[in-house]
Amino acid sequence: MSSTSPAALARSFGRAADQLRPVRITRGFTKHAEGSVLIEFGDTRVLCTASVEDKVPPHKRGSGEGWVTAEYGMLPRATHTRSDREAAKGKQSGRTQEIQRLIGRSLRAVFDLKKLGERTIALDCDVLQADGGTRTASITGAFVAAQDAVNTLLAAGKIAETPIINHVAAVSVGIVQGVPVLDLDYPEDSACDTDMNVVMTGVGHYVEVQGTAEGVAFSRDEMNQLLALAEKGIGELVELQTAAFR
Amino acid sequence: MSSTSPAALARSFGRAADQLRPVRITRGFTKHAEGSVLIEFGDTRVLCTASVEDKVPPHKRGSGEGWVTAEYGMLPRATHTRSDREAAKGKQSGRTQEIQRLIGRSLRAVFDLKKLGERTIALDCDVLQADGGTRTASITGAFVAAQDAVNTLLAAGKIAETPIINHVAAVSVGIVQGVPVLDLDYPEDSACDTDMNVVMTGVGHYVEVQGTAEGVAFSRDEMNQLLALAEKGIGELVELQTAAFR
Amino acid sequence: MSSTSPAALARSFGRAADQLRPVRITRGFTKHAEGSVLIEFGDTRVLCTASVEDKVPPHKRGSGEGWVTAEYGMLPRATHTRSDREAAKGKQSGRTQEIQRLIGRSLRAVFDLKKLGERTIALDCDVLQADGGTRTASITGAFVAAQDAVNTLLAAGKIAETPIINHVAAVSVGIVQGVPVLDLDYPEDSACDTDMNVVMTGVGHYVEVQGTAEGVAFSRDEMNQLLALAEKGIGELVELQTAAFR
Amino acid sequence: MSSTSPAALARSFGRAADQLRPVRITRGFTKHAEGSVLIEFGDTRVLCTASVEDKVPPHKRGSGEGWVTAEYGMLPRATHTRSDREAAKGKQSGRTQEIQRLIGRSLRAVFDLKKLGERTIALDCDVLQADGGTRTASITGAFVAAQDAVNTLLAAGKIAETPIINHVAAVSVGIVQGVPVLDLDYPEDSACDTDMNVVMTGVGHYVEVQGTAEGVAFSRDEMNQLLALAEKGIGELVELQTAAFR
Amino acid sequence: MSSTSPAALARSFGRAADQLRPVRITRGFTKHAEGSVLIEFGDTRVLCTASVEDKVPPHKRGSGEGWVTAEYGMLPRATHTRSDREAAKGKQSGRTQEIQRLIGRSLRAVFDLKKLGERTIALDCDVLQADGGTRTASITGAFVAAQDAVNTLLAAGKIAETPIINHVAAVSVGIVQGVPVLDLDYPEDSACDTDMNVVMTGVGHYVEVQGTAEGVAFSRDEMNQLLALAEKGIGELVELQTAAFR
Amino acid sequence: MSSTSPAALARSFGRAADQLRPVRITRGFTKHAEGSVLIEFGDTRVLCTASVEDKVPPHKRGSGEGWVTAEYGMLPRATHTRSDREAAKGKQSGRTQEIQRLIGRSLRAVFDLKKLGERTIALDCDVLQADGGTRTASITGAFVAAQDAVNTLLAAGKIAETPIINHVAAVSVGIVQGVPVLDLDYPEDSACDTDMNVVMTGVGHYVEVQGTAEGVAFSRDEMNQLLALAEKGIGELVELQTAAFR
Repeated sequence: MSSTSPAALARSFGRAADQLRPVRITRGFTKHAEGSVLIEFGDTRVLCTASVEDKVPPHKRGSGEGWVTAEYGMLPRATHTRSDREAAKGKQSGRTQEIQRLIGRSLRAVFDLKKLGERTIALDCDVLQADGGTRTASITGAFVAAQDAVNTLLAAGKIAETPIINHVAAVSVGIVQGVPVLDLDYPEDSACDTDMNVVMTGVGHYVEVQGTAEGVAFSRDEMNQLLALAEKGIGELVELQTAAFR
Repeated sequence: MSSTSPAALARSFGRAADQLRPVRITRGFTKHAEGSVLIEFGDTRVLCTASVEDKVPPHKRGSGEGWVTAEYGMLPRATHTRSDREAAKGKQSGRTQEIQRLIGRSLRAVFDLKKLGERTIALDCDVLQADGGTRTASITGAFVAAQDAVNTLLAAGKIAETPIINHVAAVSVGIVQGVPVLDLDYPEDSACDTDMNVVMTGVGHYVEVQGTAEGVAFSRDEMNQLLALAEKGIGELVELQTAAFR
Repeated sequence: MSSTSPAALARSFGRAADQLRPVRITRGFTKHAEGSVLIEFGDTRVLCTASVEDKVPPHKRGSGEGWVTAEYGMLPRATHTRSDREAAKGKQSGRTQEIQRLIGRSLRAVFDLKKLGERTIALDCDVLQADGGTRTASITGAFVAAQDAVNTLLAAGKIAETPIINHVAAVSVGIVQGVPVLDLDYPEDSACDTDMNVVMTGVGHYVEVQGTAEGVAFSRDEMNQLLALAEKGIGELVELQTAAFR
Repeated sequence: MSSTSPAALARSFGRAADQLRPVRITRGFTKHAEGSVLIEFGDTRVLCTASVEDKVPPHKRGSGEGWVTAEYGMLPRATHTRSDREAAKGKQSGRTQEIQRLIGRSLRAVFDLKKLGERTIALDCDVLQADGGTRTASITGAFVAAQDAVNTLLAAGKIAETPIINHVAAVSVGIVQGVPVLDLDYPEDSACDTDMNVVMTGVGHYVEVQGTAEGVAFSRDEMNQLLALAEKGIGELVELQTAAFR
Repeated sequence: MSSTSPAALARSFGRAADQLRPVRITRGFTKHAEGSVLIEFGDTRVLCTASVEDKVPPHKRGSGEGWVTAEYGMLPRATHTRSDREAAKGKQSGRTQEIQRLIGRSLRAVFDLKKLGERTIALDCDVLQADGGTRTASITGAFVAAQDAVNTLLAAGKIAETPIINHVAAVSVGIVQGVPVLDLDYPEDSACDTDMNVVMTGVGHYVEVQGTAEGVAFSRDEMNQLLALAEKGIGELVELQTAAFR
Repeated sequence: MSSTSPAALARSFGRAADQLRPVRITRGFTKHAEGSVLIEFGDTRVLCTASVEDKVPPHKRGSGEGWVTAEYGMLPRATHTRSDREAAKGKQSGRTQEIQRLIGRSLRAVFDLKKLGERTIALDCDVLQADGGTRTASITGAFVAAQDAVNTLLAAGKIAETPIINHVAAVSVGIVQGVPVLDLDYPEDSACDTDMNVVMTGVGHYVEVQGTAEGVAFSRDEMNQLLALAEKGIGELVELQTAAFR
């Protein structure tokens, strides 16, 4: 680790550099969706719903395969100051589109679309309260909602076997005041030099790695420390996903 | 009342024709907004936030007066089947615009904009779960959120006197299977012949009356019965708004 | 009535508080449409055309039923000062959408869509000159244009029976300087405390009631006076619609 | 002329190949605009309004010069079959934009923008009924509306001298069944091989020439015949513009 | 010609008033398109690609006929100062739409759409560097790209006979400082009084003539001089198109 | 490395698994821009222009700092089959926005915005021909164009010192048929299991790492091999950037 002592860094919830914020996963948060999960990473709260639809996008029609897609949104006052409502502005920002593409790719990475059959699971991740890490919370919660939707399909006998190959979860890591830390909250995210979002499967393989040097570029050594932190955090999140079904 | 016995009508929560659904008002539901209220009319749940902004729209600039405005949205899976996300479609539907204009007018009706000073209270009403009456729940909850925002301004000494003149609340009434009923849920709303949304002040005066005959047109006598039901319901909602601050 | 003597209120065309403006209905105003009506409520002039189209919107396809829809527009210089052209701005305002939805619902209320067969009657209401009451003139004129379009279908043997169940007409009422008045012109509309648009059938039943307190909220007693005025005015408009076909 | 006898061509209003349709110019058609002209070229009817606005577009601000601009629209049922409303589609077609740019350039060609002062004359040309030649009727009528608006400014003492340098008028010419003809109506326009719109000043100089071979390309000789016809027609239109002010 | 001696006018590339800029036509500029041509009129450089697509627009479906269409764009820094990217602004300007409609019409004028069969040739004209005359260079280059695409179809045996009836090329002419000149570059185009774009076939017939008096209107005599210059220039361009295939 | 012998993988240009495609950098490709570079990675060709503008976006106004921004586009027929033109569709795709945000962030990472002064360098990366790696070619070429623009500013005395801190370049790496390879062309990109874009500075530090498992998730060991390949490739690209200025 860095020579700056992690103890010097005051983190929310009094946690250590390699500790997640308190995570809470509430299944069945709303009643209409086939899967509906409120996931909380500290003060970040995202409502993830999974909707099963008996149709697929044009490029999958007649293929016998299904599709998994995601959309992301933030309530206007999920943030410290009010943001414009994207529906009122008439377009989704580049950031929103980037995030929802990431969520969709991450979830598809653990689905066998053939076993899903010609239907779509649409994941909607809506941020009710934002405090950093909304995209990683979205991926982690969307997996649980998708699992619930798949269980509904299995229970109804619409599919014989689960199309879910593996868990998928995500966490952010970054370098704050020279210290590599796990699961950045909003003040850390704003102040950090490097920010990396890592998406991994339940067996510890990479699905996505998106690292950005906001300030100074980072070295190979720092990269290695960040990857190690992410691996630890994702292992814990996968545990929590599993526990949510007990 | 109609000759059909109200007892014949099975209503959700086992309620009588002239009874509201269970109403719950939770203040401080999210942490960033100056006012943040989760209002529930039975299974309808709307998050109403009030944001104070130190700017006014062009037509109020330099007037010394403030503004109160509202936006409305529905999460894609708030409904029985998933609806398209308006931000993704790139436009708000006519229905959405109509509702948010109604919420804005209703709240402005009980504000003395001069006393607010040159600032805006932006009300965001986002439906987390829909089961009929989302616009009336929005108005009723937005009032509580606005009250909290005003209290913040008073506490900070930014305004000397409250700009709120009166309570405002709203409820739907309609004729279902020939029976005039109060506070329609989604199945009643879909099946009813006539649907009327009534917005009234705390002293029982009308702010808005919007009645529509979905099926057969309704008579003056039916109109009178509906107005009486609305008056009763709104009286109770105003009580609940008051109770939320105790 | 109010204690303020109506005589004290100087109204356009020297009319009493309960009097309509001079109404003129000119059928066949343009030559291409199946129905083409210029309706004038005093200085308000709206061109209402009815177009018969051999297609229905998706939700009616294969149902054997038809559809009635409406669009509304205002020429940029129909008003005192020039308004932006909605086509150039690239979107219809919330107000425009609200009005055209109202016109469509009002007309559908008097149509038996089954008897229309799988075709659409598209009503276009374009305001050539505005002086208050453009939406009520639009509904009243659109009914006459729709009647002409139906007569064309009957004459061509495309339908055997009229799908029109009843007349429909609309008028505004409001409280101006404390006096309830019928059929507000633009200066009255701008100055009034309460404005209500009422849509009724030829037998005096309500199709729509949309009342808004622009200033102070209004009492139940005022509501009753306004409803009585509207009933009187709509009775006269229905007479004029009938006379236009003699 | 062509060897095909013009007598062989049956034209609307029984006119000869080199004759205009009956032209009617009605000033003061609506009451709010500074200039409001209904111009009719046979069954083509365009409402041209001129609005004076005390502002100029950004590229003229502070220049001491004014601006003349134009917008064009067609009511949905001005045509044989209903066209989509551009405001509802959310964009103006390429054809609409091309026409309104042409009208604007044509009118600016006869304005001394310095003498207009820093204000804008906005010309709105809205087609109430279309039967060919809507753009040429628009230009011809817009000139009259602009003249009325200028007269208003002169009468009010806002400008000392007219900024109008010359008349401007427009007409279409084309080759129909081998015969060069003046002022094509819709059936001729649809059937013609070549269609040319010519805009000229009151002294017979060209402002715009827009010729298109819809079918076979046309020769230099045909071009000369068309230009001669246009010159004749525009001379007559300028006479009619002048007569409209008597 | 005008009494001002052409010698007095300093033109780019030291050319005379009736001379084209150096023209270069490079076939096969990019590798994927069925036709790909870089055309240079002096410093104006346009990449014209022709794409063959096995589909036609709705109005041609089932007709047995094909379609030829064009789109036009300019790279943001093709011009002296950077222009906004149309894709980022979310709409094509009126100018862009006008130009691409012109290119499409010009090319269709020399195609026998029946012989093309039910397929589309899509012409994309993208300006890499602009120095006046981008639309005339686009038409002239698009013809060569279209020819290459047709040759591909012939070589593959998809069509038996060429659908191309004739060459088509275009050039601008104008009056600069009183002198009629051929093929205006950007400084001339900005300074000229009159600007005319002429599109002609290989046999010297007109397809399009679009003349605009930017400053003073022009006389019939000037028109004749301009048409003569255009005829000369287009004759030379057709020669160069032919040479490009040798 | 993987046990599959790299020799087994037939790559374009007969290159080894750890070899770049032939790279060509042509400065001064177009004449108006302050920097204009055609960069070729094999058959991928991107025109990168750098425009200096004397304005900054709102969040930098008055800060004394400049801004560096990027836009990305692809000509419709840069690809194997024609893609829709984004300007015509009226919006940039999510992919386009994601790429241009990446280019902008990458370039800003090597700029000292204070030394740039209150001006913007706008980088336009337009793909003329696509064969995989368009975003990495864009970043690598945009750096050269930006360098040219900075040299212009230095030569004109507008800035005293270069705001460029370091080189920046980018390359893709991926796992194709089990073999980690450098600089994927389009067929490799379509077939690969894992695709990673790496952006590094001239001293070998990371600016961005974006890895996506298109097929199976990848292990930490594979990640390490990919990072090593990227480091090698970027070292060579930085050499080529330097050589372009000799």
